[in-house]
Amino acid sequence: MPRRGRTVGRRTILMGGAMAVLVLAVFRPSGAEAQDDPLPSWNEGVAKRSITDFVGRVTNQGGPDHVPPAERIATFDNDGTLWVEQPFYFQGAFAFDRVKALAPRHPEWKDTQPFKGILEGDPKAVAASGERGLVEIVEATHSGMTTEAFNQTVADWLRTARHPRFDRPFDSLVYQPMLELLAYLRANGFKTFIVSGGGVEFMRVFAERAYGIPPEQVVGSSGLTRFRLAQDGTPELIKEPRIEFVDDGPGKPAGINRFIGRRPILAFGNSDGDQQMLEWTAGGAGPRFLGLVHHTDGEREYAYDRQSHVGRLDEALDEAAQRGWTVVDMKRDWTTLFPPAPRSDQ
Amino acid sequence: MPRRGRTVGRRTILMGGAMAVLVLAVFRPSGAEAQDDPLPSWNEGVAKRSITDFVGRVTNQGGPDHVPPAERIATFDNDGTLWVEQPFYFQGAFAFDRVKALAPRHPEWKDTQPFKGILEGDPKAVAASGERGLVEIVEATHSGMTTEAFNQTVADWLRTARHPRFDRPFDSLVYQPMLELLAYLRANGFKTFIVSGGGVEFMRVFAERAYGIPPEQVVGSSGLTRFRLAQDGTPELIKEPRIEFVDDGPGKPAGINRFIGRRPILAFGNSDGDQQMLEWTAGGAGPRFLGLVHHTDGEREYAYDRQSHVGRLDEALDEAAQRGWTVVDMKRDWTTLFPPAPRSDQ
Repeated sequence: MPRRGRTVGRRTILMGGAMAVLVLAVFRPSGAEAQDDPLPSWNEGVAKRSITDFVGRVTNQGGPDHVPPAERIATFDNDGTLWVEQPFYFQGAFAFDRVKALAPRHPEWKDTQPFKGILEGDPKAVAASGERGLVEIVEATHSGMTTEAFNQTVADWLRTARHPRFDRPFDSLVYQPMLELLAYLRANGFKTFIVSGGGVEFMRVFAERAYGIPPEQVVGSSGLTRFRLAQDGTPELIKEPRIEFVDDGPGKPAGINRFIGRRPILAFGNSDGDQQMLEWTAGGAGPRFLGLVHHTDGEREYAYDRQSHVGRLDEALDEAAQRGWTVVDMKRDWTTLFPPAPRSDQ
Repeated sequence: MPRRGRTVGRRTILMGGAMAVLVLAVFRPSGAEAQDDPLPSWNEGVAKRSITDFVGRVTNQGGPDHVPPAERIATFDNDGTLWVEQPFYFQGAFAFDRVKALAPRHPEWKDTQPFKGILEGDPKAVAASGERGLVEIVEATHSGMTTEAFNQTVADWLRTARHPRFDRPFDSLVYQPMLELLAYLRANGFKTFIVSGGGVEFMRVFAERAYGIPPEQVVGSSGLTRFRLAQDGTPELIKEPRIEFVDDGPGKPAGINRFIGRRPILAFGNSDGDQQMLEWTAGGAGPRFLGLVHHTDGEREYAYDRQSHVGRLDEALDEAAQRGWTVVDMKRDWTTLFPPAPRSDQ
């Protein structure tokens, strides 16, 4: 592009201008079409208006709130914000299924918690093993293989596993209104990122297909990997049994700083684990958008907030009220929750 | 875009095709202009030809080596590959200057190595403190402040410090041929990343300005940061005195996996610290480009390889010969080394 500009010089600019006028004349949609709604699954209301108003302001060149495209960074939590997180985090379901699949190779698990609890379907025993138990489950199911073998295992699981209530593949339980929001932001020059407590490699398997977010724009928790040359000289990354970074709560601003290196101007979450990400985003100069998804729809999805074990929304909800952050009321604000079921389900 | 397509339907495609033909007819450059060289600072030869040949193949839609744009990931080492690394790593010079600036607040440094050696200009004493000494220097100069204060310190240093031999700002000592290569790759749909042993926050201060590489495409070594709310409620990230990740040698494939999540198809380095990155890149299926900058030009820059303390190129040079990687001979292959000196220098 710069090369062509240099070659043709001033004529490029003039012709480019003429072309722009011509293109606009040909493609300008008629009145009704110009009103096309970029967020059709959002009911009219404060939440929707606050989004379109914000995008209008930061993209309004010459306006007081204009933000250059390079700084239009938008970060989204994943669990409960972009896809369902009930009745359990989906990555937890994956880990449990892996424990069951690997059990024949680990006879000792029959008598060791938290594995015993998983194999016997005893969630209380699993829960009783606490954080140490969680780490053991993650390490047993997320390490000891190459990164490529792990990715394949996740892809296979997503293809076969089903959500217990909706009887659909887990990665089809993404929120249609948020898909529209992601696309709307990208069409307005934003770069969209996931910033989630979930495992970064787990999410990358489906993030591009499900959300249009490429691997390099997924920030998450991670384990250590070790580079080695296999016996035949093939370079490999081996997933080691050691958690390296937890991208949750106060870890989210740290993850944003480490992976993105630029403060977002828009952040969306749904739980207290997103509070610090929203605070960090709010703390920058200039226009900011802070959003929380409030799960109020027990009929179409789940209703939970202050008392929930998974995805608790308590202090962040108070802070949102206090500071005027946008709270999306799922029941009130969203006309549709999910995209149509994938063909294989119909 | 999808919105407009949906609205106007088939007509969009037809009109778009007609428009493309028209635009091509108007803007097609004449014969000589079409030959415009995207790499004018590269002499004709094997290195240049191997680059343009590779880019031609992966962008040739319908050809056997075509790679979709999303997978056109290119990773570049920084020190010695994109900018000079002699007679010392520039970030080391920054750290030494910081030690001198901070010394009044640390009277104990007068009697403690490695600080004593820095203050007294005794490089042997500093070197004798080994890796422990290096870690102490990094921690003393790269922690104990907010991320924003650190960025400001780096920016101030880049504005004032000068390279001892070239008497130019350090961030003007970037290689013009590599700037052209980065721009050429981006113009061909590549996403360009830095993958360097240098500190990620240090590099991000100048990477966008110097190379056109945005912060979120800089991968590097990092220290721990801690989120906190200051007394007045301002959210801050404090740089802690703990190195968290060293993005060098076998750390580079791990860093690529963690930050980018997709295997590069092109990688460029200049030292044994880049060997594993090149191996990891080479290990993927499909067309691959592996490049090494060989510093052979003692007159215009520095000549060093197998024996050098900084930027040693030994095993990687042997592997390059063995496996047919492209070795750029700085003296032979590059017509110009640096962009014109910035105005303030003239």
